[in-house]
Amino acid sequence: MPFDYLPPLLRESKTKLVLLVMDGLGDLPDARSGLTPLEAAQTPNMDLLAAEGTLGRNVPIRPGITPGSGPAHLALFGYDPLQYLVGRGVMEALGIGMEIGPGDVAARGNFCTLDSMGLISDRRAGRIPSEEAKPVVESLQGIKLEGAKAEVRHVKEYRFALVLRGKGLKGDIEDTDPQVTGAKPLAAKARSAGSQKAAKLFNEWTRKAAKILAKQPKANGLTLRGFGGDPKLPKYKDVFGLKAACVAVYPMYRGVASLVGMDLISVKGETPSDEFAAVKSIWQDYDFVFVHIKKTDSMGEDGNFAGKANIIEGVDQAIPELLALKPDVLAITGDHSTPVPMRSHSWHPVPLLLWSAKNMFADEHKQFGEHNCAKGGLGTMPATDLMPLMLAHAGRLEKFGA
Amino acid sequence: MPFDYLPPLLRESKTKLVLLVMDGLGDLPDARSGLTPLEAAQTPNMDLLAAEGTLGRNVPIRPGITPGSGPAHLALFGYDPLQYLVGRGVMEALGIGMEIGPGDVAARGNFCTLDSMGLISDRRAGRIPSEEAKPVVESLQGIKLEGAKAEVRHVKEYRFALVLRGKGLKGDIEDTDPQVTGAKPLAAKARSAGSQKAAKLFNEWTRKAAKILAKQPKANGLTLRGFGGDPKLPKYKDVFGLKAACVAVYPMYRGVASLVGMDLISVKGETPSDEFAAVKSIWQDYDFVFVHIKKTDSMGEDGNFAGKANIIEGVDQAIPELLALKPDVLAITGDHSTPVPMRSHSWHPVPLLLWSAKNMFADEHKQFGEHNCAKGGLGTMPATDLMPLMLAHAGRLEKFGA
Repeated sequence: MPFDYLPPLLRESKTKLVLLVMDGLGDLPDARSGLTPLEAAQTPNMDLLAAEGTLGRNVPIRPGITPGSGPAHLALFGYDPLQYLVGRGVMEALGIGMEIGPGDVAARGNFCTLDSMGLISDRRAGRIPSEEAKPVVESLQGIKLEGAKAEVRHVKEYRFALVLRGKGLKGDIEDTDPQVTGAKPLAAKARSAGSQKAAKLFNEWTRKAAKILAKQPKANGLTLRGFGGDPKLPKYKDVFGLKAACVAVYPMYRGVASLVGMDLISVKGETPSDEFAAVKSIWQDYDFVFVHIKKTDSMGEDGNFAGKANIIEGVDQAIPELLALKPDVLAITGDHSTPVPMRSHSWHPVPLLLWSAKNMFADEHKQFGEHNCAKGGLGTMPATDLMPLMLAHAGRLEKFGA
Repeated sequence: MPFDYLPPLLRESKTKLVLLVMDGLGDLPDARSGLTPLEAAQTPNMDLLAAEGTLGRNVPIRPGITPGSGPAHLALFGYDPLQYLVGRGVMEALGIGMEIGPGDVAARGNFCTLDSMGLISDRRAGRIPSEEAKPVVESLQGIKLEGAKAEVRHVKEYRFALVLRGKGLKGDIEDTDPQVTGAKPLAAKARSAGSQKAAKLFNEWTRKAAKILAKQPKANGLTLRGFGGDPKLPKYKDVFGLKAACVAVYPMYRGVASLVGMDLISVKGETPSDEFAAVKSIWQDYDFVFVHIKKTDSMGEDGNFAGKANIIEGVDQAIPELLALKPDVLAITGDHSTPVPMRSHSWHPVPLLLWSAKNMFADEHKQFGEHNCAKGGLGTMPATDLMPLMLAHAGRLEKFGA
């Protein structure tokens, strides 16, 4: 369990905590203006919170490490991603909205092209476009197995996700991708006795799939990677004493939140106001709400500076709806940086604003932005430190020792 | 041992180090002035040290964790309190000046009220006041045991401390407090074979005490908690190569210092000048002196802003007496924050001033206070990092590797 020292310190409280994550929030300054999208955006509401609160930066994984969305969120939730490993297959499946329960094992699948000897000639099946790959995946959905249910869904281009649902399945299995061309796909091989049943089932599924794919021009073979089951993460109630809710639109974030025991709240619409309305609808029933805004990241990936600033302004305009609920502690940050000039996730520390109705040591910064955050009173800290700080400000922790 | 990498690096030196701890020093700004007690206080001497030295903040335990005084001091001394656990009974006993030696086992005791069936009706004996409880504790001081000596002393209200001194006693014993009313006090139960002798002795003591207490109107029963023996912490001489002395007035701090091998120096009087005079009296004989000022914490607990600032000014006025001894390295900090508006210990990082006669990288801050410390050149660092930094500045560490 992360924070082994916390459970004995947890104190009953009615305080409410909100973690507002703008995906990929962190950025680099525009070469001309010297401002980042967060700094260029007009954010009067977040700036008021900055004035009353304290700024800083979170390091999602370790310095210099660019995080994927799954591990980055785990870190913000308080789970060191180097310690709490979630299989890539599980993340891929969660990312497209597939559920992972106890006893399920997930894997990422790649279509590949096999020659007439059954050797791999292209590990990605010529990167066939999604519209070609989708019906191929659908042709595999009828495969039946003895003692387990197989669920397969298309992800993107040549990629798909496969989940086997049964009893006593374990995912400690080696990849079937030989990582080179000119070799046959490998058999799924159990790394431990407990995973033999699942490995057999994956091989049975692969044999049946091979027959269906045989006539395909490009996607006539497949490999499986990143096997893994439910990571059985400790739950928010036990780790932090919090009844926690997730307000997010995209499946990946809902999936990761469900892994740590957050309840998934349905959202009508996709705007910040829609999400804050969902928060309002369950406000009385929860101690902690995680709210996820996706489009800051998408704009970063598109290299769209103005678009990213616009999304941030939209969030800022809706902030009063959140504040009207009177949270006791509010943290606003990102899961990672997605700088516009890089058009990708990056390792840069992520802006963080911590605000509390009580007992806040405010730093002197009055505007939420990367440059101020780099000098902020919280310093540059591991993302995993955020939750204990939120709990402390919410009056939810007893003293350690006498 | 903490800092396993240090002993091979330790270098003989005649340099002198002083760690001056103002208990509960850290605070929050006053709503009107925006200043903390440390900032509002006139501290020309500490400000001169700040100008020549470097500021920063120490995090005693972990971010967000409010420390008790015992663990907070262990951390400043260089011992991670999550790794070096000291039983609550030991801390309680040390706190009232009882000694804990090898082979001793200490426990915290609570008086409780038993009904005619021997079931607990009040776990705190109606929180009887100290003046009522004290003679009851004294009535237990005559209890004799076979093969061990029992020492019992009143702590506060319904609480007392009990130390058994014998041979081969170990404190791995379960609490006798059932934590609920309507149940009998439990027997002391050894968690390991080595603790059975001590458990038997505690039960024998409890039986004899029960007879003496039977006629008491409220305190007619007792429970024991937090059993523990000498934690056998590595000593300062071995960890840091320092002959270390403790100049403190209050028993708790003297107790914790003795656990890490500091010699306890007697102090005539209680003022900062009295304590610095005690430092002077042993200056030639020691490498390292820990000086503890208690009243900053007491004023914080009382919510007395002006009082806390006054205590700090009193310390500042006496600082020249300390500097006249020509220490090579001086660190001034607190063990934790005790903010006036909270009237209690808190998790807020603690102001830290590091001054060295040599090789100091001074930051630009010229006044010792929370806001400057938050931006100081040392950053916000674990309290356990302080000792190696002091050793380095004192020229007491060789190069690591070639």
